[in-house]
Amino acid sequence: MKGAVLHGTRDVRFEERADPTIVEPTDAILRLSATCICGSDLWPYRGISPVKGPSPMGHEYCGIVEEVGRDVKHVKKGQFVVGSFFASDNSCPICHAGYQSRCVDARPMGAEGAQAPYLRVPLADGTLVPTPALPPANMIPSLLATSDVLGTGWFAADAAEAGPGKTVVVVGDGAVGLLGVLSAKQMGAERIILMSRNADRQQLGREFGATDIVTERGDEGVARIKEMTGGLGAHSVIEAVGTQESMMQSIRSTRPGGHVGFVGVSHGVALPGIELFMAEVHLMGGPAPVRRYLPKLIDLVLDGTIDPGKVFDLTLPLSEVAEGYRAMDERRAIKTLLTV
Amino acid sequence: MKGAVLHGTRDVRFEERADPTIVEPTDAILRLSATCICGSDLWPYRGISPVKGPSPMGHEYCGIVEEVGRDVKHVKKGQFVVGSFFASDNSCPICHAGYQSRCVDARPMGAEGAQAPYLRVPLADGTLVPTPALPPANMIPSLLATSDVLGTGWFAADAAEAGPGKTVVVVGDGAVGLLGVLSAKQMGAERIILMSRNADRQQLGREFGATDIVTERGDEGVARIKEMTGGLGAHSVIEAVGTQESMMQSIRSTRPGGHVGFVGVSHGVALPGIELFMAEVHLMGGPAPVRRYLPKLIDLVLDGTIDPGKVFDLTLPLSEVAEGYRAMDERRAIKTLLTV
Repeated sequence: MKGAVLHGTRDVRFEERADPTIVEPTDAILRLSATCICGSDLWPYRGISPVKGPSPMGHEYCGIVEEVGRDVKHVKKGQFVVGSFFASDNSCPICHAGYQSRCVDARPMGAEGAQAPYLRVPLADGTLVPTPALPPANMIPSLLATSDVLGTGWFAADAAEAGPGKTVVVVGDGAVGLLGVLSAKQMGAERIILMSRNADRQQLGREFGATDIVTERGDEGVARIKEMTGGLGAHSVIEAVGTQESMMQSIRSTRPGGHVGFVGVSHGVALPGIELFMAEVHLMGGPAPVRRYLPKLIDLVLDGTIDPGKVFDLTLPLSEVAEGYRAMDERRAIKTLLTV
Repeated sequence: MKGAVLHGTRDVRFEERADPTIVEPTDAILRLSATCICGSDLWPYRGISPVKGPSPMGHEYCGIVEEVGRDVKHVKKGQFVVGSFFASDNSCPICHAGYQSRCVDARPMGAEGAQAPYLRVPLADGTLVPTPALPPANMIPSLLATSDVLGTGWFAADAAEAGPGKTVVVVGDGAVGLLGVLSAKQMGAERIILMSRNADRQQLGREFGATDIVTERGDEGVARIKEMTGGLGAHSVIEAVGTQESMMQSIRSTRPGGHVGFVGVSHGVALPGIELFMAEVHLMGGPAPVRRYLPKLIDLVLDGTIDPGKVFDLTLPLSEVAEGYRAMDERRAIKTLLTV
């Protein structure tokens, strides 16, 4: 098969890769219905995260089960399934507590390279969630979104304790931030403030439920949030960038006793202890335990309540994956869907 | 009156200070029944926190109301009261959410200098909690403890979500850590592991409810906790020191999805973002909102359920305050009670 392989900075190629096969008896092989490019893929693409030799790329996926290993009990050939970007056994104490991305046997799906027509999924029974029936083609983008970008935005909103009566600030207008808006809206937040300077993203944010847009950043952004919240700060802040500036802006925008849910993959961040101490905010974040939310999110998509697939504003065939990365790198696209 | 004044590193003096008076109409003046020295007083005493000129010391207090300002409605002359180390209005949205230490009008009581016979308490109605009757003398140490050291340990255990079925680790065997043990026990924790190398503190920890003692520190301490928890880490960790080492030890001892409650005043701490991201633990801490807990803690003391006053292992007259600091600095005493 041919799939995406990153060779170095801004050098992603569509090239021959070995067909995946059952390696462990708990594996499944999927024929993907679609795949996509994640904002976090841009870190190695831009050379900010190191790349050790040619690396298969991609960790968001949904598709049809082609084959299962002999120990797979629940997932069946022919089912349509969605999985998270971390495979997990869904049975250890960490999974039971709802933190499947930190399962004692967690496997990063990026290592399998989901920007490809076929994908090996380890721990298939723990990882994959089947739909009741094969979904219609027009629902594939939204189902694909549950695999990471929606699951991550949802986790951030949940960690930030978005809910009725709450003012929620979203720092980061990428696909995760925008779906953080959608998630906060679903959770019943009263006011959702999206920090964004980009007209297209502002509009999608409003479609997803943002009540206010703030264009200021950094200290000015914090001052604006304070001004809008009677000097107190927001109850809930979703951090969806991963830089020092975005983390500090998030913490400083939160009122004492409020909650920050941070999901931007942290790059070069060091949080000053005394500021955190005096801020007195709850911090929770990390790789989203998407598996916890998948059944609910799939239901919300299938019953038409949400349409997170709208974040895909560029669709390309997998063979044009390099252009998909370029478009996101240059912020010409929010998120690229790849048809296979 | 004469009270404690810090002049410089390890130079605390018992000397003449102005008698406190009503400054704002919401003030009360207390005649203190006892006061004490806090672990956090040692930071400026040791010269680690800067001291700008002679500073009155002390922020833990209980006593009899001598006088109230004209706008004080609920606190009455002659009542026995306890207050927190932050005065608060107890009516703003931050107070209502239970974070009175970050009240929009919070006033640090350290500025008033509670190591003295008399004390001005701003925002008296919001800050002070009266007992139903004058308490017997033998309960004064435990009631004094609710003002900060117990309230802080309780907040840490609460922020760490100590409770039934939980394994709680306590990093720090000072008075706050020891009362974190007591608090976790009251909250129903199943297993309470105190990190301590000091025989006296280990024994008091066991009296307060510690089920296990671990003497290793740093990475070895973390490894020991992992070993004791099936490789997972603790559900709840109380951090009661405030250094980089203790914070990292606390975060690393917590299982994914678990909770760290940190109350050691942060000194020179910088938390690496990517490690926090991958740890996926809840972090909550800061100056304890003792006012939230005071009514309950006072009840637990008065009905004899708890005896937090045991942390005072040295009692001196206020005139010997300098020796009280020396004894704590040299770890000859856990905590010094000062009679007035």
